[in-house]
Amino acid sequence: MYPTVEKHIQKALNNNIPSLSHRSVKFQEIYKSTQDKLRKFLRIPKGHHIFFLASSLESMERIIENCVDKHSFHFVNGAFSRKFYQFAKMLKKDLLKYEAADGKGFDVNKIKIPKNSELICVTHNETSTGVSIPLQYINKLKSDSSRLIAVDIVSSVPYVKIDFSKVDITFFSVQKGFGLPAGMGVLLVNERAINKANFLAKKGNNIGSYHSFLSFLDKDKIFQTPETPNVLSIYLLGKVLDDMLEKGIDTIRKEIEEKAKLVYGFFDNHSRYIPFVIDKNFRSKTTIVIDVKGKAKEIVKKLTKIGFIVSSGYGQFKASHIRIANFPAHTIGNCKRLLSNFFPFSNYGD
Amino acid sequence: MYPTVEKHIQKALNNNIPSLSHRSVKFQEIYKSTQDKLRKFLRIPKGHHIFFLASSLESMERIIENCVDKHSFHFVNGAFSRKFYQFAKMLKKDLLKYEAADGKGFDVNKIKIPKNSELICVTHNETSTGVSIPLQYINKLKSDSSRLIAVDIVSSVPYVKIDFSKVDITFFSVQKGFGLPAGMGVLLVNERAINKANFLAKKGNNIGSYHSFLSFLDKDKIFQTPETPNVLSIYLLGKVLDDMLEKGIDTIRKEIEEKAKLVYGFFDNHSRYIPFVIDKNFRSKTTIVIDVKGKAKEIVKKLTKIGFIVSSGYGQFKASHIRIANFPAHTIGNCKRLLSNFFPFSNYGD
Repeated sequence: MYPTVEKHIQKALNNNIPSLSHRSVKFQEIYKSTQDKLRKFLRIPKGHHIFFLASSLESMERIIENCVDKHSFHFVNGAFSRKFYQFAKMLKKDLLKYEAADGKGFDVNKIKIPKNSELICVTHNETSTGVSIPLQYINKLKSDSSRLIAVDIVSSVPYVKIDFSKVDITFFSVQKGFGLPAGMGVLLVNERAINKANFLAKKGNNIGSYHSFLSFLDKDKIFQTPETPNVLSIYLLGKVLDDMLEKGIDTIRKEIEEKAKLVYGFFDNHSRYIPFVIDKNFRSKTTIVIDVKGKAKEIVKKLTKIGFIVSSGYGQFKASHIRIANFPAHTIGNCKRLLSNFFPFSNYGD
Repeated sequence: MYPTVEKHIQKALNNNIPSLSHRSVKFQEIYKSTQDKLRKFLRIPKGHHIFFLASSLESMERIIENCVDKHSFHFVNGAFSRKFYQFAKMLKKDLLKYEAADGKGFDVNKIKIPKNSELICVTHNETSTGVSIPLQYINKLKSDSSRLIAVDIVSSVPYVKIDFSKVDITFFSVQKGFGLPAGMGVLLVNERAINKANFLAKKGNNIGSYHSFLSFLDKDKIFQTPETPNVLSIYLLGKVLDDMLEKGIDTIRKEIEEKAKLVYGFFDNHSRYIPFVIDKNFRSKTTIVIDVKGKAKEIVKKLTKIGFIVSSGYGQFKASHIRIANFPAHTIGNCKRLLSNFFPFSNYGD
C-alpha cells in the first residue's frame, strides 16, 4: 500500500466516510474532487470522461459491450491481453488477433489490422510477463470514429505518459500504481467512444444494464454512480492523489525509472537469474519479471519472511519466474534492500 | 456501520489485509472462512453456492444473463424491483411483469404467472417504499428446473428467514444488514440455477464474460474470485459474522422485531405522520417508510445534526417520506432516542 493510506483510512473512519450515502451531497463532493485531482495528476483532457467501476476485468467487458458491434482486434502477448480477447469471444463478438509469444513484444504498426476492426485492444504493460509496448508505437495507431483504440494501463499507471489525443479508452485499477486496497477500477473514455455506445444502443444492441457508458455518463452528470459504489475507495483515491500531486508526477516517474535501472542492472549482471524480457525495448519499468531458474517458490518464501512481497510467476511460469512490482509506493531504499537479499539464494560471486 | 467494524478495520491494517494478493493462500483462507460463517449464520444449505461480486445491481444483471433465455417475470412495486425488470429489458429479454402501485404489496400466489416464464423475480423488501412481501407467499411459488425463483433480500438480510429449499437465487449487499462499508454484493445460487447457466452457455448465449455463474463456480472451487475482488470487504464480512454469530441470529431478529414494533407503534399513534404502508401484512420490519407530509427535508436535516442518519423518500417521494433503517447495527436505545426527537417537529400532543 502507498505509505499514507493507513492514515487516510483512519481519517475516513473519524469522518464516517464508510457510512456516507452515495446519493448525498457529501458523496458528490468527494466524487467530483477525486475526478478533478485524477484529471490534474494524469493530465486527462476534458474530452475524456472518468468512470468508477468494480475492476479492470469489468472495464474490459464494458468496453467490448459499448464499442463493438461485430469485430474487435486484439494484440495478445500474455495472460491479461488474452483475457481481453477471450471476454470479447464470450460476449459473442467476431474476433481478430495478433499473437506474440509470452515475453515478446511487437511493433503494433508493423502488423496489418483488418479494416473492419471497430476496436483495437492493446495491453500497454503485460503484468503476467513484464512486457511493455513502447508508447510511441501505440501513439501511431490511427484512431477515428470507425476505429477506436483501448489501452490497458492496469500495471503501468501512473508511470505511463498516455497521450490522450491518441487513444480513446484507457483503464486501470487502484490497487497497483495507486497502492490502495483492491476493489475498484477506473475507466477513461472519450466522446468518440460515447458516440459508439450511443450508436450501438440505438441499433438495439445489448450494451449492458446498470453499467454502460451511457448509464455511467448519465449519473456522472450529477457526480454519482449508477450503483452503490465503493465509496471508501473513491475517497481514498482522492487522498492519495493529494499526496502524489504534492510529490509531483515527474518525480514519481523519475524514481520509477531509477528503480527499474537498478533492478535490471542487477539481474543483467547476475550469474544465474536473468530478466525474462530480453529485448530492452519491450522491458516493463513497473512490473519486472526475472527468470530465477525454477527457484521462485524458495525466493518468494524467504523474501516474505523479511517483509518483501514479491510474486511468483504467472500461470505456466509460476515456478520459474518472480515478478517485482515497481510502483510509486516502493522507495529506492526498499529496492536496494530487496536486491541486497538476492545474494544468498544464488551462486553470485561463487 | 456495525459497531465493531472500526475495530476490525484497524486489525485488518495491522495484519496487512489490504495488501494481500487475491491469489495467495492467506486470501483463500479468508474467502473460505467468510463463506463458512455466512453459511452457518444464515443457515444456507450446501446445495447453494456463495459468490462475491461488486453490488446487488450487478447480481441482477448476472442473474438475468445466466438464468433467462427469453422470458423473465417480475413482480414490480417500487424502484428496485423496477430496476430488475428494466435490466432484463436492457439485456434484450422478453419481459412479463405484474405491477402494483408503489407502497402496495401483493399475494404473489394470486397472480397468474405465464407458463413460459423461466425466472420469477421478487423483491422481498422494497427499500424505496418500505413494502415487504410476506415470506409464506414467496415460499408457495413453485420452483422447478424450468422455472427459477430469484429473491432480492438486499434490505431484509439477515432478518429475513429464507427457506432455501423454496428459492433458487438470493442476493444482498454488505452495506445494509451487515453494516459494512459499501462496495460488495453477495449472490447465492443453487444447482438448478447453475444448470440453467450451463444450458444457456452450451446453447451459445452470452452469459457474461469475467463474471458468470460458471466463472464464479470455477474459481470458487479453489476459494478465489475471477477478478481482483474487494479483499478487505470479504475479510470484514467474516469478522462481523463472528460478532453476529456470537450474539445469535435469533436475538438479532427479535431485536429487529422489537424496534419495528416501537417505530410503527409510535407513528400509528402520531397526530400527523403516518406509516406509508397501510396494510400491516406488507409492512417492512427493516426499512420503515413514514409519510411526513412534505417535511422530509426539515426532519432529515435536524436529525443529522444530532447524529441520526435517516433517509429522505425515494424518487418521487423525496419530499414527502422519510425512511428509517432498522438493521442489526441499530440498538433499541438508538431507536428510542430517535423517536424521542420527533415531538418538536410535529403537532403531537398539541
